[in-house]
Amino acid sequence: MMQYSKMFDISTTVSEDMAVYKGDPLPAFEWAKKIPENASFVTRMSLGAHTGTHVDTPLHFKAGAASLDQVPLSAFVGESVVIDATAEKEKVTLDLLKKTDVKKGDIVLLKTRNSSEHAWREDFIYLDVEAAAWLAKTGVKTVGVDGLSVDKFRSGSHPTHHALLDHDVNIIEGLRLRDVAAGRYFLVCLPLKLKGREAAPARAVLFQ
Amino acid sequence: MMQYSKMFDISTTVSEDMAVYKGDPLPAFEWAKKIPENASFVTRMSLGAHTGTHVDTPLHFKAGAASLDQVPLSAFVGESVVIDATAEKEKVTLDLLKKTDVKKGDIVLLKTRNSSEHAWREDFIYLDVEAAAWLAKTGVKTVGVDGLSVDKFRSGSHPTHHALLDHDVNIIEGLRLRDVAAGRYFLVCLPLKLKGREAAPARAVLFQ
Repeated sequence: MMQYSKMFDISTTVSEDMAVYKGDPLPAFEWAKKIPENASFVTRMSLGAHTGTHVDTPLHFKAGAASLDQVPLSAFVGESVVIDATAEKEKVTLDLLKKTDVKKGDIVLLKTRNSSEHAWREDFIYLDVEAAAWLAKTGVKTVGVDGLSVDKFRSGSHPTHHALLDHDVNIIEGLRLRDVAAGRYFLVCLPLKLKGREAAPARAVLFQ
Repeated sequence: MMQYSKMFDISTTVSEDMAVYKGDPLPAFEWAKKIPENASFVTRMSLGAHTGTHVDTPLHFKAGAASLDQVPLSAFVGESVVIDATAEKEKVTLDLLKKTDVKKGDIVLLKTRNSSEHAWREDFIYLDVEAAAWLAKTGVKTVGVDGLSVDKFRSGSHPTHHALLDHDVNIIEGLRLRDVAAGRYFLVCLPLKLKGREAAPARAVLFQ
């Protein structure tokens, strides 16, 4: 049996007043059934696949590329290292990553100032493209960030996404890492099992 | 670090041609953004909170009762026992459960013929109300089923739901247990982190 001392929920709460990436669908909720008119409450929701904590797949940026059901779930489950990047002011840099113990096969979670701010801002801390390329070269399995995107807002060509996805490094975005200290954990990040889509909302927990 | 030899995905795939409980919203998907008109593919989806694999909370049947954010996530994470109930023809009975090693604190997953059938049927195998009451008295933490509901289709007053939820036993529905043998596992079932709703779609895995 698996043993752990503590479980941390590192997911963003999904609600109508949350922030989403500019131009993405806003989440909406209504009652499809409602007491006393019906025998139960049943929610109907509308949301974009990149709402809150979510995973991206190669199909996000390339027609015909791998969709969610073509990426093994093990991409988002396994040994994980939380990196303290809270001192970074604009982006997570290669200089910082080189000082860490990131290893081949790791799921690397980058904790920045994004996690401690109440609302998502357009000047969120992103992942520098050179740093992303270094992570891919190191052979990490997956990179998770606490901003709306791994790329700078309005990057245009999404170089950081490509530096990861084009080299088989998977992406998790929209994590909440405020309450988690730097260190090693066991990550279980489970996206909804959507057929043939480019992304899915997910719930993510770290076990210590 | 947590160790496991195998991970089983026990979740239902969410797609437009799946079955949902009669009267519930059907899932729908469209492209909110699309290549080449936009720089990326972005899915917009509409779905009910009880689509596929999902968790129910007391608010499902009672105004003012606990919503998803008031139920600890640990309700759906922990030691789990898969019971082979594939011989049951109509419902999972107390007779069968009494022959098992179900213990206080367990997450009990009931594997029935539902898991081996391609489509959800209205005469799905359900959980007998006496069997549910016995599970609650035994002190199990959560009960998971592989049908559209723990109750018989069109039960009217939902007695099995009440026998569980009214005694602080949590509910998971819509699991796919075909590929999992009876026995003990570690369950991680993660519902989307929806604010103030009565249920949420989830992804569930068993670790061996």
